[in-house]
Amino acid sequence: MTPANEIFFDFVCPYAWRGLELAQVLRKAGEQEFKLRHFSLAQSNHEDNAGKDKPVWWLTDQPLAEAAPSDQKLPEKDEAKKRHMAFVQSSLLTFLAAEAAARQGEEASWDFSLAVFRAHHEDNKPLNEATIMEAAQTAGLNLEQFAADREDEQGLRARLRSELTEAAEIGVFGTPTFILPGGEAAYFRFENLTRDLETARQWWKLYGEVLNADAGIATIKRAKNRPAKKA
Amino acid sequence: MTPANEIFFDFVCPYAWRGLELAQVLRKAGEQEFKLRHFSLAQSNHEDNAGKDKPVWWLTDQPLAEAAPSDQKLPEKDEAKKRHMAFVQSSLLTFLAAEAAARQGEEASWDFSLAVFRAHHEDNKPLNEATIMEAAQTAGLNLEQFAADREDEQGLRARLRSELTEAAEIGVFGTPTFILPGGEAAYFRFENLTRDLETARQWWKLYGEVLNADAGIATIKRAKNRPAKKA
Repeated sequence: MTPANEIFFDFVCPYAWRGLELAQVLRKAGEQEFKLRHFSLAQSNHEDNAGKDKPVWWLTDQPLAEAAPSDQKLPEKDEAKKRHMAFVQSSLLTFLAAEAAARQGEEASWDFSLAVFRAHHEDNKPLNEATIMEAAQTAGLNLEQFAADREDEQGLRARLRSELTEAAEIGVFGTPTFILPGGEAAYFRFENLTRDLETARQWWKLYGEVLNADAGIATIKRAKNRPAKKA
Repeated sequence: MTPANEIFFDFVCPYAWRGLELAQVLRKAGEQEFKLRHFSLAQSNHEDNAGKDKPVWWLTDQPLAEAAPSDQKLPEKDEAKKRHMAFVQSSLLTFLAAEAAARQGEEASWDFSLAVFRAHHEDNKPLNEATIMEAAQTAGLNLEQFAADREDEQGLRARLRSELTEAAEIGVFGTPTFILPGGEAAYFRFENLTRDLETARQWWKLYGEVLNADAGIATIKRAKNRPAKKA
């Protein structure tokens, strides 16, 4: 087995979902290892962190509890703030649940993460408590253990914080970002989903070729009005 | 001969320089055709154009004449403005000269453009009248014809304007952006220079594979603190 690759991802991101599916195909076939790593788009894109070398706004410093829903229509500015806070909280809730799931082992971590991704991006379910509990069942987690591990909110936040810290040090800016055993790291955004081994192998090989080419390729990015074709 | 590729470039950009060198190797070998296209980073990155669907600030609307140099130290804000204006003017001057050189044919256009690129990025010469005239000589232009063509400033500005208009329609955002005969278009940034045919062939093939992969690859971009290695 080759040394492990790593994949930084955020549950909100459909590209990260496809990246995890690709990685799962290759690891199930025993061809590549991938370590799951957490990266927060809510944090990375937060206005307080714009232009900063190190984050000043951390997802792990935010509260979990959702504000009590209100029927009263707020001014637009406050509505936007409320929407953003709900986004932040659902993101944090999901990451902490994933950290708890990971305490049941590597396969549990993969199965839970993919179950959440599929619920959110295939079945359009929100990232909330119901989706998390359904994913825990789909992944076959020990639910009692899962509940107990989730109680250790401080420990889970600390784990997540160390993930986000390392992502910031590497300069991850989007998901999925794959890191190869040699240290090469790049955002790899693709539009199409595969769960086919031969296809996954080809896409992964192409990614490695770009990162290892003598050209020293830093970026290949489509022009805005010439998007990639969806399969 | 296959239908022509296109390459959008700006003389200020070292990545565009390497792109043009790569393209020149392949066209000299008779393997690929490339059409030279102009794209302005000064325009694309101008603050007035930020977030706009269509540019409102155009390089072709700017004056050519350089402000009389002043020994007087200006306030920092005005110094920055002056530097920016000098950048804009040298950029426009070079593009218009390149449009004039192109009137002497395709080979003249390539030879002049590469001579300017090499003077600026290999020999660290500024983009100014002296560099332009030296490049015209290096490229073996008919200098009398070149001078006459440069007199038609209005016609040259109109040509440049149509280039910048098309670049904006495609959504070019950086240089070099290569467009393949099938319409696939992407920014292709690489750190290393090659003038070797076999190497150029490999790098070009890899670019095409990324753009044509079934994955629908939209972006491969290195993490900020894991840059590509220079050869």
